[in-house]
Amino acid sequence: MVDQPLWEQIGSSFVQHYYQMFDSDRSQLGSIYIDASCLTWEGQQYQGKRAIVEKLASLPFQKIAHSITAQDHQPTPDSCILSMVVGQLKADEDPIMGFHQSFILKNINDAWVCTNDMFRLAIHNFG
Amino acid sequence: MVDQPLWEQIGSSFVQHYYQMFDSDRSQLGSIYIDASCLTWEGQQYQGKRAIVEKLASLPFQKIAHSITAQDHQPTPDSCILSMVVGQLKADEDPIMGFHQSFILKNINDAWVCTNDMFRLAIHNFG
Repeated sequence: MVDQPLWEQIGSSFVQHYYQMFDSDRSQLGSIYIDASCLTWEGQQYQGKRAIVEKLASLPFQKIAHSITAQDHQPTPDSCILSMVVGQLKADEDPIMGFHQSFILKNINDAWVCTNDMFRLAIHNFG
Repeated sequence: MVDQPLWEQIGSSFVQHYYQMFDSDRSQLGSIYIDASCLTWEGQQYQGKRAIVEKLASLPFQKIAHSITAQDHQPTPDSCILSMVVGQLKADEDPIMGFHQSFILKNINDAWVCTNDMFRLAIHNFG
């Protein structure tokens, strides 16, 4: 495969945009989801832009900062992009925690939106 | 959402089958991939059933055992299933390591195959 294929550029731009927006004002994240989007957050399921943003906005911390350890991107047979992110986050004054998150991105009307989003803290895997 | 929707049953059956086969004889895993399948293994990319199985078979351990900490499944807009697994593995006499893996499953000719597979050890996130 060639260096920096298109799906890699799109996936990494999305990932950068997502965490920048999450860390600065996560209530604005509705712009990346559609009504068919699914979020599974620590095993809890939410569907649709409104339910997803309500969940994200209601998370019980004021400040959060993500840092990305590794990210992988692949094209799917249906012309979507699968992205998997491994990283660390610091919420308020809590200790730094590992997390992993997977996204599917789909091009709809010339814009890339997130149709699927799964998030887990890594802490459960080492508790 | 109802308890145990279909995608959850299919996703968790696939995950159980995949790790059982991986732990008993990973050279047999070709049956779950197709020629369009992509694998990203610790950041390295492989495409196609043959290249993927060659990579998996060549991994430098004799014995391996996976245990799953958490798994999430979602339907995608293209009638696929996205699965994300968090778990631990023990390879030969190495220390237990955390891992995370994401799959996209697609129904082709009445069988569910894996079109996308991404694997990362969690160790890099805590090194």
